[in-house]
Amino acid sequence: MRPEPTTSRGRRTREKIVTTAARLMHERGIGGTPLEDVLAESGTGKSQLYHYFGGKQELAVAVLEHQLERVLAAQPSLSDEECTDLRRWRDEVLAAADESGYGNCPLGAFVGQVDDDTELRTTLARLFDRWQDALTTLVRRAQAAGEIPADVSAEHLALTLLTAQQGGTTLSHLHGSPEALAGSLDDVLARVSR
Amino acid sequence: MRPEPTTSRGRRTREKIVTTAARLMHERGIGGTPLEDVLAESGTGKSQLYHYFGGKQELAVAVLEHQLERVLAAQPSLSDEECTDLRRWRDEVLAAADESGYGNCPLGAFVGQVDDDTELRTTLARLFDRWQDALTTLVRRAQAAGEIPADVSAEHLALTLLTAQQGGTTLSHLHGSPEALAGSLDDVLARVSR
Repeated sequence: MRPEPTTSRGRRTREKIVTTAARLMHERGIGGTPLEDVLAESGTGKSQLYHYFGGKQELAVAVLEHQLERVLAAQPSLSDEECTDLRRWRDEVLAAADESGYGNCPLGAFVGQVDDDTELRTTLARLFDRWQDALTTLVRRAQAAGEIPADVSAEHLALTLLTAQQGGTTLSHLHGSPEALAGSLDDVLARVSR
Repeated sequence: MRPEPTTSRGRRTREKIVTTAARLMHERGIGGTPLEDVLAESGTGKSQLYHYFGGKQELAVAVLEHQLERVLAAQPSLSDEECTDLRRWRDEVLAAADESGYGNCPLGAFVGQVDDDTELRTTLARLFDRWQDALTTLVRRAQAAGEIPADVSAEHLALTLLTAQQGGTTLSHLHGSPEALAGSLDDVLARVSR
């Protein structure tokens, strides 16, 4: 990955390229998004894009990182060191799903698109690990506050919650309704709540 | 949809077209699979394909139906009226996932690919409903046999199990390991087992 731009104008240009590519790749897939479309829709030139990215793969890495940042920004409970309430996280997940009209998960939509590309696959797994680690940290805070039993494995509960979020988002997208997502998250939380 | 072929040769040709299209569309997406590729890889001619299918959309409907049949064939506990054991279903799901090298769900992989096509989206939702209904029926048999408490909602448990299967398959695919899928199904089952 090339160095970050140092001027605010450079940062804006790079950001416009990444957000446009993220929108297109989320809608049409990485394979269905030629660089020409990114250039046309972001109104940037080829030389600008190649100034910031070595090519499509480097741009896709930046897109995946951008998608995780979007996910984490919509789940402030994860980074709030005061938060010990898993239901706040659950409400944030539901609110973001509702706001997107029960769209695909910004990050999960890319699973299965990167099977043939070791670098992208490794990047995506690493980003999911960051998400899961943040959720594990929230679970530990909830345990320290006595809201979740101490004998529950925080890593396992975080993985189960992320699995419920992924499957629930898929089925809520399919049906265009919150039922699958809300129901599966609530089931996991009911099992560990005091 | 056109009438089914009446000769065994016709059925074989139609089946070869559908299984080839299913493999390509599962690997590359519906949008990433031109009819030309289906013709080339199945070794059939354009006139044969148009004899059985009005076009790509009709072929895609047949592919989605074929994918559900594959899923149900790998989960014989659902149609076995003697089966009252949700763990047998869980073992079948895990065995199929292992056999595919933790690939994408044959049916779930298409969620999000059909947003702009009302007929395909309706078809996919209907096929998921059939899967969920079969799972609800298995839950009811387990309840009748006293293996699951009678006060559990069979529909809700079936949706929660399907959500765990979808999310678990996604994360097991990402990590290339059974942990997410096995862990999330076991968690749901542990909650309702006696």
